[in-house]
Order: sequence, then structure tokens, then C-alpha cells
Amino acid sequence: MSLTIWTNAQFDIPTRQKLLFEKGPHVLVFSNQLSASNLAKARPDPAMLEADVAFGQPDPDFALQCPRLRWIHLTTAGYTRYDGAAFRQTFGSRGSVLTNSSLVYNEPCAEHVLAFMMAQARQLMPSLDSQRADRAWPTLDRRAATSLLLEQNVVLLGFGAIGHRLAELLAPFRVKITAVRRRPAGDENVTVVTEDKLVEALATADHVVNILPENPATVGFVNAARLAAIKPGAIFYNVGRGTTVDQDALLAALQSGQLGAAYLDVTDPEPLPPEHPLWSAPNCYITPHSAGGHRTEPQRLVQHFLDNLRRFEKGDALLDRVI
Amino acid sequence: MSLTIWTNAQFDIPTRQKLLFEKGPHVLVFSNQLSASNLAKARPDPAMLEADVAFGQPDPDFALQCPRLRWIHLTTAGYTRYDGAAFRQTFGSRGSVLTNSSLVYNEPCAEHVLAFMMAQARQLMPSLDSQRADRAWPTLDRRAATSLLLEQNVVLLGFGAIGHRLAELLAPFRVKITAVRRRPAGDENVTVVTEDKLVEALATADHVVNILPENPATVGFVNAARLAAIKPGAIFYNVGRGTTVDQDALLAALQSGQLGAAYLDVTDPEPLPPEHPLWSAPNCYITPHSAGGHRTEPQRLVQHFLDNLRRFEKGDALLDRVI
Repeated sequence: MSLTIWTNAQFDIPTRQKLLFEKGPHVLVFSNQLSASNLAKARPDPAMLEADVAFGQPDPDFALQCPRLRWIHLTTAGYTRYDGAAFRQTFGSRGSVLTNSSLVYNEPCAEHVLAFMMAQARQLMPSLDSQRADRAWPTLDRRAATSLLLEQNVVLLGFGAIGHRLAELLAPFRVKITAVRRRPAGDENVTVVTEDKLVEALATADHVVNILPENPATVGFVNAARLAAIKPGAIFYNVGRGTTVDQDALLAALQSGQLGAAYLDVTDPEPLPPEHPLWSAPNCYITPHSAGGHRTEPQRLVQHFLDNLRRFEKGDALLDRVI
Repeated sequence: MSLTIWTNAQFDIPTRQKLLFEKGPHVLVFSNQLSASNLAKARPDPAMLEADVAFGQPDPDFALQCPRLRWIHLTTAGYTRYDGAAFRQTFGSRGSVLTNSSLVYNEPCAEHVLAFMMAQARQLMPSLDSQRADRAWPTLDRRAATSLLLEQNVVLLGFGAIGHRLAELLAPFRVKITAVRRRPAGDENVTVVTEDKLVEALATADHVVNILPENPATVGFVNAARLAAIKPGAIFYNVGRGTTVDQDALLAALQSGQLGAAYLDVTDPEPLPPEHPLWSAPNCYITPHSAGGHRTEPQRLVQHFLDNLRRFEKGDALLDRVI
């Protein structure tokens, strides 16, 4: 079986070589409509009309017009632009499959959240601020400000691949994890509650980790009322999407001290403009949507696609299937 | 059995109350020769002459002159000033016991090391520098600079209570840990090598974590030759003692790029003077000897002493015994 695999993913030479060397007997078509980044979709590319498989970020409307396309493998974990009812219906009803790269991004995202949590516990940010300023040595004050992650209460908003991996990384700390999920699957190894129990969970939280994707149900999910329901002084983290948070309410919660600190990898908009007040809000620390990144990201993206390609060849169930 | 317990530990009122309420039928004598901090020894205190138990940082020479003293429980993990041959011989030969507070400090120290490691992997320090400066949003560059801790090689210099706990925290990352130990005990759950195999281990290290205490065998242990033996670009961490590192050699290794970064919680001297070049060395990040600290440190120190006191009352083996 020889498939035509179209890709508009932008990779460096060694990663393209890996894809070429390990693709097997298939025809690989590199689109000349490269996406600007893995987060941006490309323009429609006529070369995709002949493809059985698309790997990258194909235009969703155009994908529906490609008669042979049976499988799209996205280079992102997010798939908002493919998540509309029309696309799901049309693409799914013809037996085509959409997979994403969750298994590539759950590790860096979960590590990023743990980095945030540990940096807060050990007060690394105030120490760097001090290193860049007076180079004082406030041992006693800094020690009194530090804390342990051990046995604290952690609330996760969303519990997909990142949440599962984060729970694994947190296991040695014996934290109590409560995950809030729209539809509990029953196979979670942590306490799972639905939205109607969220306020009770927030009241006990030392840490609230937002991992929500963007969709109509999640936009503005972390609003003033929910921020007010969190245990005073707790820490808020966001590696989901910026639009899921009411940023004015977040700013107010930091200014009042209701939140002890916030660690944000995503904001609305991105880039966050230099004059935005969150940059200088008390105890607010921001990374530039880097949580999913890692030096070995291109190789791991290609490896994940190849793993799925081997499954596709054999007719096995694909990893990270979303449609 | 009523014991006389002398203490020169400096605690806040709630912690002193905990000690008083939970000490049992014993007489508690608060020294008026309080130590300036848990790291400093007090002057000789005649009140200790009547004590069966000393809790805090008693003067070691004076302790040998206290005829009833059968047990000293230190409020630190370090015990350098009690570690001389003369003290060991005299104190041990009369059947007295010295315990330390390793089990109080292994958790914060291990969490501090993991905070350092995760901050490096996820490049939190450059992101904070950027937040304090141009507030740029260099997503692609930052992502390319980040890495995963997953499956990396970690060499631990020293493998006591902190190393054991760190190995537990690192377990979910499936890292390969090699611990260098003077006398392997045989019960370690990681690969343990002696000093003669150190150079081979360093050559494979992505991360080198120094947890060495200060003693004649460890002063200057991390010297130019050993730094040169480390895999180029690896990251160095120190939560042991500053004197165990040749700081001129460390500075040179950072300047040449032989080390990718250094995270130091201890230096020589402390405080590190503001004009010291390590403060501004490339990718060198310094916390002010705060690794062992935590908000709940006083309560955990007293709880650990009380746990050992219950054992002492029953004649059971004490936790954290060092002599």
C-alpha cells in the first residue's frame, strides 16, 4: 500500500530527513504553502487534492473538498479550527479520521506547570529579582516565604493528556488532586468532579491549574465569581488558553491579594502588549506561550506521526484521535 | 521518667507552645543563650550542665562537660562542628547519641533542586528577565531553548537524605540517576559509584547536582578538572556547601560555556558580596541559602524532635542518628 502524504509542517533539514527516511513506501508531498508556524493554518493547497493523508495544519474547509483524504494528523494539541459541528459531521461521516499531537505536548506542558509550581514554592522569582537588583542575601525572610508542595491541594480545570501527565509528576508529592471535568470518564486516578461541585473544590485549593482548551463552553470560564471562590492566597496557573480567563478579574484578584500569585503561559491577546497591566501585576509571572515547546519538538512530532502511520498502515486504532 | 530538656532553639510563640504542650512529663529549660540562627552555635550555657537532652545548637566542647547529657538533637541537617574525631570519640564512647534534622530538610532541599532543574528546562529565568525588560514575546526562540527533563542523565554528588528524596521526586521523569558516594551502602535504588568512577559518570551527565556536606574530604571537591570532565553544556546545581566548589573554576566554566548554566543556593562566602562575579556570570542563578527553608520549618523541626523524644522515652532507635 502506497499512500500520498501531504505535509505543510515546517521542519528543519534533519527532521525532514527523518520523515523521508522513515516514511516507508509512501509518496511524500511537501506543500509549498508552508504554515507560518505550527499554530497557523496554511492557505488551500491544490496539491492536497491528491493526498490520502495530511500532516500539519491543513485548511479545514479545503480539506473537506479533498476526496481521497482519509486521515489528518495535526502538529498541535489544539484543534479548535476543526472542532465545528459542520467539520465534525462532514469529515466524520465519510469515515475520515482526525488525530492531534497531544502525546507530544503533554510532557512539556506538564513539566512547565510543575516548573511554575516549584518556582512558586521555592520563591525563585523573588530571588532572581534580588539578584538583578541589590544582590542582598535575605536568607531568613526568603526561607520564611518559601513553602513545600508536599501534601498540598491542587485543583485542575480540565483533565486531558496534560492533566494525566501532571498527576503522574505530582504523585511523589502526595498532593490531593481534584480535577474538574465536563464528562468524567470514570478511569481517572484522581478525584474528578463536575462543574456544579467546582466552588467547593476551589475553596480548598492551594493551587488552581487551568488546562482548559478554547471552545464555546470555556471562554471566560475563570471569571470573577470563580476567582473569588478560590481559597485566599492560592496560586493560579494557566497553560490552557488565554481566552478562558477574565483577565480584568484576574488582575483584580492579584491586586487584592485574593490570589497569592499567577503564572501564565497564555494570555489574551498574544503577544500580550508591553503596556498590559498583567506584566506588572503583583506576583504575576508570564512566559510567552512556551509551555508546549522543547528543543526536541520537531523530532518528537515526526516520531509521533510515524508511530501513527505504522498503525494506519495496519488498520489499527490511531493514537490521539479526536474525530 | 522525667528528663531535663535544654533548648537554645529560637522559635516563634506558637512553636514554643507546641513544644511545651507536647513534651510530656519532662522539664523544659529554655536557654537564655539563644543562638542567633539555627546555623549558629550558642555560647556555653551553665543551664545545660543539668540537662539529659539538648535540642538546638549546643556548644560542642561544653556539651562534653555536661555529665548527664545523653542525647543532642540538632536543629540542622549539617553537623560539621560536631564531626571532629575528638567529639565523636568522647561523646560516643560514653553512650551518648547525636541526631540531626535531616528528615526536616530533605523535603525542601529536594524540592529546591527540582525547582532549579525545572526552571532550567522550561527557561523560566530568561522569561522573567524578558518580563522585567522589553516584555517581548519570543515564542519560537524560547520554545527552541526549552527542554524536557524526561529521560535525562543526572549525577548526584552525595547521596544522603536529600539525594534519596530527590530520586523519589525524579522517578516520574524516568531519568537515569548515578550517585557518587564514598561508601556505597548497597541499599540505594539508583546506580551508585565511588569516586574513582566519577569522571566516566560526569562525561554522560546532563545535570550534576552537588549535595556534598563540608568536611576535609569535600572542600574544593568540584574543581577545574572535574568541571572539565562534565559533558559540555550540562547544568550544575549546588545545594550542599559553597566550600565544596572551586568558585574560580566554576566561573571559568560558565564563561567558556563548558557549563550551560549553574544554580547555586550556597556560596563561599555567604552572603556572597554584591561585587562577586558569580552574580553576573552567564546563566548563573543564585538563591540565598534558602533551599532548606519553608514556612512550616519551625513546626516541622519541633515535630521531628517530638517524634524522636517519643522514641527516646521507649528506648527505641532514634531517627537521623549521626553519632
